[in-house]
Amino acid sequence: MQSDGLCASPGQSSVRGATPASQRKNAGRNGGPRTRDDECFGGGTDDNMDSDFDFEGNLALFDKAAVFSKISSLGAEGEKPTYRHDQNILEVKPIVYRQITVPQHQHGGKEYCTDSGLVVPSVTFDLHKRLLASAERWGLSVERRLETVGVCSSQMALSLLGGPNRLTPKNGHQLPVVVLLCGPHLQGAQGVSCGRHLANHQVETVLFLPNCLKMQECVSREATLYSRSSSQQVASSRDLPQTPVDLVINCLDHHESPLLREQSWYQSAALWANQNRAPVLSIDPAVGAVPQSVEAKWTLFLGLPLDVERAESKVYLCDVGIPKRVFQEVGIGYHSPFGCRFVIPLHTA
Amino acid sequence: MQSDGLCASPGQSSVRGATPASQRKNAGRNGGPRTRDDECFGGGTDDNMDSDFDFEGNLALFDKAAVFSKISSLGAEGEKPTYRHDQNILEVKPIVYRQITVPQHQHGGKEYCTDSGLVVPSVTFDLHKRLLASAERWGLSVERRLETVGVCSSQMALSLLGGPNRLTPKNGHQLPVVVLLCGPHLQGAQGVSCGRHLANHQVETVLFLPNCLKMQECVSREATLYSRSSSQQVASSRDLPQTPVDLVINCLDHHESPLLREQSWYQSAALWANQNRAPVLSIDPAVGAVPQSVEAKWTLFLGLPLDVERAESKVYLCDVGIPKRVFQEVGIGYHSPFGCRFVIPLHTA
Repeated sequence: MQSDGLCASPGQSSVRGATPASQRKNAGRNGGPRTRDDECFGGGTDDNMDSDFDFEGNLALFDKAAVFSKISSLGAEGEKPTYRHDQNILEVKPIVYRQITVPQHQHGGKEYCTDSGLVVPSVTFDLHKRLLASAERWGLSVERRLETVGVCSSQMALSLLGGPNRLTPKNGHQLPVVVLLCGPHLQGAQGVSCGRHLANHQVETVLFLPNCLKMQECVSREATLYSRSSSQQVASSRDLPQTPVDLVINCLDHHESPLLREQSWYQSAALWANQNRAPVLSIDPAVGAVPQSVEAKWTLFLGLPLDVERAESKVYLCDVGIPKRVFQEVGIGYHSPFGCRFVIPLHTA
Repeated sequence: MQSDGLCASPGQSSVRGATPASQRKNAGRNGGPRTRDDECFGGGTDDNMDSDFDFEGNLALFDKAAVFSKISSLGAEGEKPTYRHDQNILEVKPIVYRQITVPQHQHGGKEYCTDSGLVVPSVTFDLHKRLLASAERWGLSVERRLETVGVCSSQMALSLLGGPNRLTPKNGHQLPVVVLLCGPHLQGAQGVSCGRHLANHQVETVLFLPNCLKMQECVSREATLYSRSSSQQVASSRDLPQTPVDLVINCLDHHESPLLREQSWYQSAALWANQNRAPVLSIDPAVGAVPQSVEAKWTLFLGLPLDVERAESKVYLCDVGIPKRVFQEVGIGYHSPFGCRFVIPLHTA
């Protein structure tokens, strides 16, 4: 910019009306013999003291618009953008927050989002059932799912109970008490599996499982395993604790047997849960037009959420280990929303 | 103490040689008519200015030894100890740190301790095998265990990979790469299950599983499920990544087939693992006289630890959901050391 003379300032050699220092020095040398001190200190400092600097004339030489347009054109074309030390210089793919797509007619009508903002749509019960059936065909058997649900839901329950603060050897005098209300069906078996894992972590568990003539095999197997944990099991709600417990886990409902609710064991267990002041965690609850018989503080869905009528319950989602392509088989475009976790909270979008 | 006159001080009414204030006031009132101001401000302040207080006489009245013995006897018998606000007033049972007992001849010879100080003894391979067999008889099938091991080991691997910091939607351009080296046996199937759960959490997994004529059913089932996660599977170590990966999970060894090590697929896979600079996690490794063929940074045992010859590997223990009484059946006195977690680090005691 100096070379083209457009931008001039008083200190530069192209300034008119001011004699440059080099000229002054040369003038002193050529003008005749001088002492060394004169050469050093006596240089014509006051030669131009009387002639004023021509501010206006200099300003007229400066074409501000032309200079600025040249500067801005340089920035746009040739120069690279600069980065701060904490900026990422790798090109980042745009984040897709809507990674799970559900066929329109199978959409549950509700959308949730995860802590990191990923959108998780709810699905109809029918689609959810087909998803699990498809996973079973590929080898993700009911037994496997029971175990995964047991591990993950007990991990959630353990953290609700206070996690490492509550369950330390120094706290042996106040072990948490958890009551599991389980119906004689698959959902109930999931609760029994959760209860076994809780009992394995020194939680005092009380399992409520009604006596039934035709108990499903998955339930009786789980109950046998549970019995090995030397924890309590009761068949009547009269034998449930009368004092408030730390947590109630509700697995009374079955998706396809709404008539269960009219049985006496169901009603007495639901009554007990609503009267006990403990908070309730519902695992894989039946959803539909009828309201929940036991009001849950937390609801845990498996794989993808179903619709919950009431918004009071906090919704959580459990990863039951279904691979991506199984989702695709039933028409769901899927990308895991779980990050590094197996149980995540879902927020109403 | 005032009533028995033993303890006297200058301000009290029983002090000799000092007229109490109430007497002074009354004296002023009874002595004749006074103005209000006199009554208020003119009270005989200087009545006793000349009589010195009898310190020695008063001191002689005070039997220090008798008073102190009475105070200390009160403290010992009648008074409750006082507590600070952060002290526990509930009586605490003494903590038993040695809660797991193993028959002497089945003891692995090593003892570990958990973060909270609980002692976990190692067991012989024979006892470990009987423990798992007993659990299977009660219904904790191999399939269930495969799923639990898959969930828990993948949780451990996810946290080794960086956990929530690494696996966030904003980090989609640098997904972690994990190679699973699996033999054609139960231990290998555990690795495949771990791989599926990792793939379900957006880890880029590469499964190495050699082609075998007689593949165990548990392995082929796991591999089928894994194939649904649309992740890579290779049968030759030549197809494994040539660049360092984030983590290698080693499930090559089988407890009861030491001869596997002489097969070419085993040797080439072990060579690859030792040449790739990635850290290695060994799940349920075979232990014995021969050293590990792949040097592991972390070792994960199931249920109870076996003996590791080398101390370089950090030892972790995984809860596979075996109930207490199953441990007792094989002679192990058991009390869960896991607290609220499913995978815990073990330290050499």
